[in-house]
Amino acid sequence: MNYKEIEGGVTAAKGFQSASAAAGIKYKDRQDMALIYSEAPCRAAGTFTTNVVKAAPVTWDQDIVYHKPFAQAVVINAGIANACTGAEGYGYCKETAEAAAEALRIPEEAVLVASTGVIGMQLPIDRIRAGVKAMAPVLDGSLESGTRSAQAIMTTDTVKKEAGVQVELGGKTVTIGGMCKGSGMIHPNMCTMLAFITTDAAISKPMLQAALSEDVNDTYNMVSVDGDTSTNDTVLLLANAMAGNPEITEKGADYEAFRAALHQVNETLAKKIAGDGEGCTALFEVKIVGAETKEQAVTLSKSVITSSLTKAAIFGRDANWGRILCAMGYSGAQFDPEKVDLFFESAAGHMQIIENGVALNYSEEEATKILSCPEVRAVADIKMGSETAMAWGCDLTFDYVKINADYRS
Amino acid sequence: MNYKEIEGGVTAAKGFQSASAAAGIKYKDRQDMALIYSEAPCRAAGTFTTNVVKAAPVTWDQDIVYHKPFAQAVVINAGIANACTGAEGYGYCKETAEAAAEALRIPEEAVLVASTGVIGMQLPIDRIRAGVKAMAPVLDGSLESGTRSAQAIMTTDTVKKEAGVQVELGGKTVTIGGMCKGSGMIHPNMCTMLAFITTDAAISKPMLQAALSEDVNDTYNMVSVDGDTSTNDTVLLLANAMAGNPEITEKGADYEAFRAALHQVNETLAKKIAGDGEGCTALFEVKIVGAETKEQAVTLSKSVITSSLTKAAIFGRDANWGRILCAMGYSGAQFDPEKVDLFFESAAGHMQIIENGVALNYSEEEATKILSCPEVRAVADIKMGSETAMAWGCDLTFDYVKINADYRS
Repeated sequence: MNYKEIEGGVTAAKGFQSASAAAGIKYKDRQDMALIYSEAPCRAAGTFTTNVVKAAPVTWDQDIVYHKPFAQAVVINAGIANACTGAEGYGYCKETAEAAAEALRIPEEAVLVASTGVIGMQLPIDRIRAGVKAMAPVLDGSLESGTRSAQAIMTTDTVKKEAGVQVELGGKTVTIGGMCKGSGMIHPNMCTMLAFITTDAAISKPMLQAALSEDVNDTYNMVSVDGDTSTNDTVLLLANAMAGNPEITEKGADYEAFRAALHQVNETLAKKIAGDGEGCTALFEVKIVGAETKEQAVTLSKSVITSSLTKAAIFGRDANWGRILCAMGYSGAQFDPEKVDLFFESAAGHMQIIENGVALNYSEEEATKILSCPEVRAVADIKMGSETAMAWGCDLTFDYVKINADYRS
Repeated sequence: MNYKEIEGGVTAAKGFQSASAAAGIKYKDRQDMALIYSEAPCRAAGTFTTNVVKAAPVTWDQDIVYHKPFAQAVVINAGIANACTGAEGYGYCKETAEAAAEALRIPEEAVLVASTGVIGMQLPIDRIRAGVKAMAPVLDGSLESGTRSAQAIMTTDTVKKEAGVQVELGGKTVTIGGMCKGSGMIHPNMCTMLAFITTDAAISKPMLQAALSEDVNDTYNMVSVDGDTSTNDTVLLLANAMAGNPEITEKGADYEAFRAALHQVNETLAKKIAGDGEGCTALFEVKIVGAETKEQAVTLSKSVITSSLTKAAIFGRDANWGRILCAMGYSGAQFDPEKVDLFFESAAGHMQIIENGVALNYSEEEATKILSCPEVRAVADIKMGSETAMAWGCDLTFDYVKINADYRS
């Protein structure tokens, strides 16, 4: 790969600025709105929740991404999801876009919106409007400004989530940066809870959408915190062409290099969502190898990553491998349980637990040591072929229950 | 319905006896084996896990239920599941059946076996054999004996689970009784974690299997504690014809009466599994009404009952209805979110929360009161037709995490 990782998030790429504000949407004494702005109009790509119950901002953004040529700004709020809010909620998307259009002097139909938080409450539109008005004059292209925006969109997240890479395309340096937020109701289907990626690459709208659509299947769609597919899942990718590279208009070396760099950003953000799942103490990776088809590997890895019993065992640092085999067994994918090899690995070591479906005489103490790291991985070899898949999740903890028994209060 | 509920479990029906023993399989100082025996050979019906990873006893029992004419005894142990144990584990099923056949003087192929507990460990076959030998001479047809057996098969269950009914068929009193156990790794698919139903009805083997297969779809298959479909799920139904009713050999009034009585036993047991889910504080029922098809109603109700976020909200007695709509939305079933009415109900009252997809101005305090009962119900009307479905689950609590982070230790 010829890309390199860099510091920074949504303001890393040329021409992108951001701002944030404490608008008092739901939280007190913290920033809860963010604004992303590009000096030049952008091609926009997006992937959205497949939930039948779609939040109003999802519908608003789909219209822009699918039917309008350009986008130039994104207004984001945390605290209230603007989901299950009917016509009134959709009207607030339009009012938000109007406010941003006026403040930024861009067309209303170039303003994307995104919300995250409690379902069913209406947005306090006056505060949203005031927040937009306050943010527009303080837009700033510094990395610090991007970081403040990544903090402002957090809900139950405990850490801000950013990623950035640079790649050479046609002799020009192209930058891709992004931010995202989790951390509950995370089981994306075609995309994840709010992620925003910006790039100065010159790339046609169809190729931009293709790169994003292909990549979410290997990144955000392989993450699960709790099996609940949100009403608001949204990944937006904005490209303003300011890097000056020859425009990517078809598949080829430049497209593949862009795709690899984008994948690095998306995988980093996806792993950060899993590793900061509500209440979690460990990032739990599940890799299936030796699968006959990619689909089979995906089905098996996602089934394990969403198993409550497996997740609780990981919290207990208990090498309860029977639960992993059980979750593979009910996944819907076919395989021969009596051929499965299973391994646990982490920074503390690597250990085979079962061979051909039956437990080896392994040391429980050693296994617990391996599982006691903040990032642990189970690898299952089903010996049917050469396809693989990796899924990311986290453990199930007391704090997950606490956070979600109390969330609205 | 012309059936009536009665006291008792597997020994309620004529000619059935049971015994239990402290065999020291895994637990200390408690009974952990049970034996069910019928004075006369029985027609046997069964439904089993659809997990690709099937425990050895499932394979053993499938052979008897599908291919042998009669069964006469069931040997059950708690503590070790005999799953993922390869050829050695299957051999122990045979050895268990041999021991029971010898002690009871019945054919080995008339002995069903069932195990529940930790996956991956081998059974201590000497203790199993000693347990069988100890139980055979103390078989007893009293209701108390049945209750002791219901206690002996418990793992993380906190209460024993029995049900019984009587129904008149052709002028004769027919009794159906049963017992079952939960309480984690409960998300049955075609059947549930260990349930044993006995009846003195005279009914042909095909009609017995038909009655069971139809009924599990509305009872055990509508229960979920944690979304994990076990490797051991087994429902066995034994009929010894000792009631003397005219044999049921085809659909008709007697079959329907038997089916209704069987349903009452199965529904009671299924609800007991949900209401005693690991760590739970409430039975949570989800009813979908106004569906276009039964399948749609089932998909929607099961999606809500398995949503971790909804379950945590129920633990918090929080009327977080957005999570219910969200879980309906990602279920895979189609409906119009803007037509949904949602109600909460319990012994403390009945309350409409949303109308046509949007929240009513309801009292949160009153809603919390309704949700504070040990049995709570959400009813969603999707206004598309007249089909309904009911699913049973429970809340997600600190204790669920505690139990499953520690289970093997």
